[in-house]
Amino acid sequence: MQFIIQRNRLINSVQHVMRAVSSRTTIPILTGIKIVADSNGITFTGSDSDISIESFIPVEEDGDQLIEMKQTGSIVLNARFFGDIVRKLPMDTVEIFAEDTQHVLIKSGKAEFNLNGFDPSEYPLLPQISEEDVFSIPGDLLKMMIKQTVFAVSTSEIRPILTGVNWQIEDGNLICVATDSHRLAKKSSPIDVPGDVSYQTVIPGKSLLELSKILDDSDHPVNIVITENQILFKTKNIHFFTRRLEGNYPDTSRLIPSDYKTNITLDGKVFNDAIERASLLAREERNNVVKLASQGENMLEISSNTPEIGNVSEEIPIESLQGEELTISFSAKYMMEALRAIDGTDITISFTGAMRPFIIRSEEDPSILQLILPVRTA
Amino acid sequence: MQFIIQRNRLINSVQHVMRAVSSRTTIPILTGIKIVADSNGITFTGSDSDISIESFIPVEEDGDQLIEMKQTGSIVLNARFFGDIVRKLPMDTVEIFAEDTQHVLIKSGKAEFNLNGFDPSEYPLLPQISEEDVFSIPGDLLKMMIKQTVFAVSTSEIRPILTGVNWQIEDGNLICVATDSHRLAKKSSPIDVPGDVSYQTVIPGKSLLELSKILDDSDHPVNIVITENQILFKTKNIHFFTRRLEGNYPDTSRLIPSDYKTNITLDGKVFNDAIERASLLAREERNNVVKLASQGENMLEISSNTPEIGNVSEEIPIESLQGEELTISFSAKYMMEALRAIDGTDITISFTGAMRPFIIRSEEDPSILQLILPVRTA
Repeated sequence: MQFIIQRNRLINSVQHVMRAVSSRTTIPILTGIKIVADSNGITFTGSDSDISIESFIPVEEDGDQLIEMKQTGSIVLNARFFGDIVRKLPMDTVEIFAEDTQHVLIKSGKAEFNLNGFDPSEYPLLPQISEEDVFSIPGDLLKMMIKQTVFAVSTSEIRPILTGVNWQIEDGNLICVATDSHRLAKKSSPIDVPGDVSYQTVIPGKSLLELSKILDDSDHPVNIVITENQILFKTKNIHFFTRRLEGNYPDTSRLIPSDYKTNITLDGKVFNDAIERASLLAREERNNVVKLASQGENMLEISSNTPEIGNVSEEIPIESLQGEELTISFSAKYMMEALRAIDGTDITISFTGAMRPFIIRSEEDPSILQLILPVRTA
Repeated sequence: MQFIIQRNRLINSVQHVMRAVSSRTTIPILTGIKIVADSNGITFTGSDSDISIESFIPVEEDGDQLIEMKQTGSIVLNARFFGDIVRKLPMDTVEIFAEDTQHVLIKSGKAEFNLNGFDPSEYPLLPQISEEDVFSIPGDLLKMMIKQTVFAVSTSEIRPILTGVNWQIEDGNLICVATDSHRLAKKSSPIDVPGDVSYQTVIPGKSLLELSKILDDSDHPVNIVITENQILFKTKNIHFFTRRLEGNYPDTSRLIPSDYKTNITLDGKVFNDAIERASLLAREERNNVVKLASQGENMLEISSNTPEIGNVSEEIPIESLQGEELTISFSAKYMMEALRAIDGTDITISFTGAMRPFIIRSEEDPSILQLILPVRTA
């Protein structure tokens, strides 16, 4: 294998596939990046047990020659050393020459690295995915839907299924739901599939987080293929594989109350800042609890109390309160994360009493819903 | 105690004195910031066993009223909570009202914090320093002299004196020297003292690092008072106290060779980049060793070899080599830190043989010298 490649493109591909490489793997070859050079271009692959990422650089793109291919072939190189080396190379082009697996020369200008490689035939094969059932989502929408739900997955392995985001496609909509059983995030969006197509799958939260870091903010389509065990996300030059989580995702629709006793509409930014201040003294408590108490139709009081440190209270204006007056306590962390996901100017919070879950919605964007379970306080 | 203060100035002072507050102290009151309000203004104090910092905000400055003083007094508040609170307050002014030590109100707009305080009479007194022996250094020069030497102090407590920087004033010059016995950094500068004044003191490296973070890049004078146990650095509104290290600093002048067998002059940036690349594969080795080998009068080879990973070599151009050809090995980390301190375009490295310490100097600035002991290799 021997080729000359543009350094910037090489850095970019290596950074992408390194997201799938774990330094803690017990399988030595998975600490490496597989490089396969054929007449069309070069494919880089990184993988751990959950995620595999392929990044392809074509020999030529839009009339620019990106690679001068001297000899096709393949090699596996230690991901961390290879990544460090390509970032620090002195010139804009790099020559890589794998004489055999133990002698790989990386050359740029006067700098020459000889790296020991691994035998590429020992690298595990990625799943072969037939492309029958493909649908597509604009990249920026996909990135947004991940961001608005993935933070709410469970970090505990007690119920593994809750570490994933539930994706459901029906009636031409994609509905994403994540919950750790203390709060829930839900986002839906119409997507371009026939109305009679329906899927349901649970995708690991960690996989979606890594995927969202690779996606850019353009509306270029991401093609998605769901198979029995795997899901493949395909952009122009990247293939991102993740395993599906096994098991039945709980029916969360019953969690979401349908009638409300109190509806409060207010400025999300003002509310978030007050919650953040109220949480300052409470943050070392396990639950980081703040209290919300309505004060008539124009005002809320946000407060918290940590006896050994002190207490804080703040009155903030609201646009409206409809229904019963209310006092309720909840996790400041969950509320701030929900508000960050909604990211709207005006929000409405709908309560069904101090001991029942409440929901937060954006006045501008009805497609997103956040739910939080209150905390029982003395 | 009761006053209204501009929030930005408050944040600034709290950030400065927090540099002296350690969260790991075993003395509860030292987790706090002492606030003393008198008719002139407010003094904030933070302290641990090594460093104490006072920051003063006057009632009025340059015709601007910074503080509305309602009642003088004093209090001690938990540094971390107080710091978090003032950063997050909603308005540009803050009212602080200490009714008694257990009830301190911090109010900004509609946000009200009640914080438990400490009794200020229990806060340790700072050393009273008579201001007989004062000299002064421009702040930017002081900051530079710290930066160019402090990184070379020892991090090991085996010889505590080496964890400090040796300051010597004689013949109107300040000479700063730091060494961990594997490398040495030395910087001298003329300062504004009478020629017959001489001092010698060793200042903890950690204290100098914190001091350099507080100093701005202006040439406003910093007044320095050296007493038997303490040193005080005074800027317009900040007093920075540090203890002196006890013990005799070793005579480092004999370490620095005076005649050389090989002098190499080259571009510091080109050299640094090649060292950095050569160190990429070696960085997990304890010594992170790279090898330099002269190749006639116009070229150097920089290389390293880590058998289980690979090897790297690079030829770089030099401006001149005078004297004997040379092959020598040294720590890449020490070399990169020395080059960062010198920060000059053209540097000269002077060797007295492969087993002897060598020195690195800037062609532009003879006031700085870096010395490194080579590593013996097979």
